[in-house]
Amino acid sequence: MARDTFRLIAQAQADYARCIDDDRLEAWPDFFSERCVYKITTAENLREGLEAGIIFANSRDMLRDRVSALREANIYERQSYRHILGQPCILSDDGITVRSETSFLVMRTVQDGDSVVYATGRYIDIYAIGGDIAKLNERIVVCDSSRINTLLAIPL
Amino acid sequence: MARDTFRLIAQAQADYARCIDDDRLEAWPDFFSERCVYKITTAENLREGLEAGIIFANSRDMLRDRVSALREANIYERQSYRHILGQPCILSDDGITVRSETSFLVMRTVQDGDSVVYATGRYIDIYAIGGDIAKLNERIVVCDSSRINTLLAIPL
Amino acid sequence: MARDTFRLIAQAQADYARCIDDDRLEAWPDFFSERCVYKITTAENLREGLEAGIIFANSRDMLRDRVSALREANIYERQSYRHILGQPCILSDDGITVRSETSFLVMRTVQDGDSVVYATGRYIDIYAIGGDIAKLNERIVVCDSSRINTLLAIPL
Repeated sequence: MARDTFRLIAQAQADYARCIDDDRLEAWPDFFSERCVYKITTAENLREGLEAGIIFANSRDMLRDRVSALREANIYERQSYRHILGQPCILSDDGITVRSETSFLVMRTVQDGDSVVYATGRYIDIYAIGGDIAKLNERIVVCDSSRINTLLAIPL
Repeated sequence: MARDTFRLIAQAQADYARCIDDDRLEAWPDFFSERCVYKITTAENLREGLEAGIIFANSRDMLRDRVSALREANIYERQSYRHILGQPCILSDDGITVRSETSFLVMRTVQDGDSVVYATGRYIDIYAIGGDIAKLNERIVVCDSSRINTLLAIPL
Repeated sequence: MARDTFRLIAQAQADYARCIDDDRLEAWPDFFSERCVYKITTAENLREGLEAGIIFANSRDMLRDRVSALREANIYERQSYRHILGQPCILSDDGITVRSETSFLVMRTVQDGDSVVYATGRYIDIYAIGGDIAKLNERIVVCDSSRINTLLAIPL
């Protein structure tokens, strides 16, 4: 069981990252369950018990709305992103739900320019497992830096 | 099957990266089939349908020639590279051929200096599978930035 | 066997990185066998056969002492680290001992600031395998750059 879980989550993470980096944002909400939590916060906020995140959504529909808003706002965007994820740490697996944590590094590249660090941090995830499919019931994105653009251009 | 495939490709990618980072470039062509395509291009070129890549080879012998040329040109080189790869996304697997995509980040370090980002992007791969061995029939290296040194010092 | 080994080592690496990045340094020595070697060195030193490392320990107790010293020295530290590890290369596996190499990138983030590259390099590891647990008999941390802070703030 543990082995399948590791592969399943590793694959789900890789697919998620690829979806964003390919700029197929309309497909991004499909990685989540219909009722879900998606939150971006900072390590400092988390440490101090501050609930407020930079971004908060509690349904897949809210994620779709967010993508629509991004598309309207970023018509002329000429930058791309690259997620590099670590191996997932599988924290628990009761057969239905998997808790995991995964480190991420996201690079941003302006078309003709350098690639710079956009964000580092970790995903704290709760996945719902059904057969060979893992959907996110909850993803808390914890950024290492507190200096975060509050108009974050893309999902993390 | 899917599970073995994931491990097989993940392992092949890790071995490939290690070969380059260890500066064992003479062994690098062995990761490819005798007839193969190796191309380095940019996301912008790919988007605009431009066929021309920065580097193009269509046989393992051409890869060997490239290594020889690099060795002659870079006798005094004092830099090293570090590939950090994401998990592979397995796109298809018909038992003989596996298509996958994998994100990469390559850092460059001058001996006494800082480590800087050399390239980010993704591999679009077609692997030929024979038993426990995966060889590249095709690797398209798509760099995120269009500002690429056309005399790229090492394979990506 | 090979498949289990890959997952086991990948998981051990991810747990190791998470332990450090979560600042649970007191738990870090537990990833090692009681008698162990932990060394931080540079690629240049390794190439020139220089034995002396930047940091050297040959028991778990020495690792515990190091953590104590770090805690006393870094009371006011306001920075965090993020390890991004590549897939492990499994070099050998005799059922009891596994040799592997894994590339790493460690980013450092000052609380309100940018994330910068702290170190890149590779782990050269010997793991002792007992059931589903892998402990480090030896970890040689080889940094790509020779310009290394000799008062390295954290374990790598």
